[in-house]
Amino acid sequence: MPRFRLRIEYHGGGFVGWQRQRNGLSVQEAVETAVERLVGGAVRVHAAGRTDAGVHALGQAAHLDLERDWPPATLRDALNFHLKPHRIAILEADRVADDFDARFHARHRRYLYRISDRRAPPVLELGRVWHVPRRLDAAAMAAAARLLEGRHDFTTFRAAECQAASPVRTLDRLAVTRDGDELRVEAEARSFLHHQVRNMVGTLKLVGDGKWSGDDVVRALERRDRAAGGPTAPPDGLYFVRVCYD
Amino acid sequence: MPRFRLRIEYHGGGFVGWQRQRNGLSVQEAVETAVERLVGGAVRVHAAGRTDAGVHALGQAAHLDLERDWPPATLRDALNFHLKPHRIAILEADRVADDFDARFHARHRRYLYRISDRRAPPVLELGRVWHVPRRLDAAAMAAAARLLEGRHDFTTFRAAECQAASPVRTLDRLAVTRDGDELRVEAEARSFLHHQVRNMVGTLKLVGDGKWSGDDVVRALERRDRAAGGPTAPPDGLYFVRVCYD
Repeated sequence: MPRFRLRIEYHGGGFVGWQRQRNGLSVQEAVETAVERLVGGAVRVHAAGRTDAGVHALGQAAHLDLERDWPPATLRDALNFHLKPHRIAILEADRVADDFDARFHARHRRYLYRISDRRAPPVLELGRVWHVPRRLDAAAMAAAARLLEGRHDFTTFRAAECQAASPVRTLDRLAVTRDGDELRVEAEARSFLHHQVRNMVGTLKLVGDGKWSGDDVVRALERRDRAAGGPTAPPDGLYFVRVCYD
Repeated sequence: MPRFRLRIEYHGGGFVGWQRQRNGLSVQEAVETAVERLVGGAVRVHAAGRTDAGVHALGQAAHLDLERDWPPATLRDALNFHLKPHRIAILEADRVADDFDARFHARHRRYLYRISDRRAPPVLELGRVWHVPRRLDAAAMAAAARLLEGRHDFTTFRAAECQAASPVRTLDRLAVTRDGDELRVEAEARSFLHHQVRNMVGTLKLVGDGKWSGDDVVRALERRDRAAGGPTAPPDGLYFVRVCYD
């Protein structure tokens, strides 16, 4: 059966996350239902990474097998038709090799976390940023973020429910930049632990507040204990930006 | 009575526009209600410009008179408290001269119009862009836009309901630029006619589609007839960005 790769955008608000769950509508269920409406049979869609409830995607990747060899542009347009009115869009469909795996063949993942640190509540960006109503020190956060780059045991930033075999990851990039009233945290790695980006952002925010120093962040990392890290940042500000393959 | 100027952000979706109307909630009514909850009496809020239903503001300006001389930051925060859960935020409050007028003293207004011309429907930007699902020629649109800059009789781009005394305006800037899958049209003038930006954008889109040339746009302008112009672009993509005062 021909295998396809999808690049998917979604607004995480209103979904229980990527993965199918009993307690509400997941992005996976909405996409699989759209595929089933198109092809008339049960189809499983495998994503590059699970996203939590409320987390957005600008470029989630997934693969699926279909019986027919659809022209990719037709498949994309037909799925978008069946996805209405959900806030999910198929940006691209591609024909890939039969052994391609969206999760295991991913070479690189990129996330973006947006923080609005102006005084007034965000109304145009409601649900799309974390609102922290006092100025954060972006330069201090950027310097602390660089201390987390590299190969480390990230247990301090790992959710208790994380199912990964090892807590060791190589964080290729963790950059903090200011754009007006907004801070943008960009994180890049081959793979991330569950809640790793949100837990790192929650910790960097303590640095931006002046409560923690860069040394405190390093000490927390070295403790290898979730209780030593800062709180988990809310899902609203997180975007799964891109997955790269060889 | 001390006079204050407000800088206001709002998401236009769900409002009947800035101005009070019988058929639904306006931004003006929501702001005036918030002020009245704060000060306990009827207060009129005067905006720099009316925006239509569905049009957003990043920086609408308005003035109002209050009996007390509120510290501006306190006024801003208190109004934001009373504006919940509306998608309206007071970005700044300032104490201004007693004869300041948000509408008549405006020296310069800036609008932004966003068009998404990718194939897939916008889901993260739903209600915030005009979706045109085929690639537009941004360079041709930019060249045609420049032909509209300057002092002209803009009757061709003026709504029938427009109440301005004269259809002559000086358009200081009309720039079209591409940013990935998005076109951004920036319009600057001392003042605009009713629907002028949306009507100009609807006409430029015909150029982007290859249906009209720059010469067609000039001929339409010279006809001084609304029927000679292109259709009105939808409100979703329009943002009232900024008002400048001396």
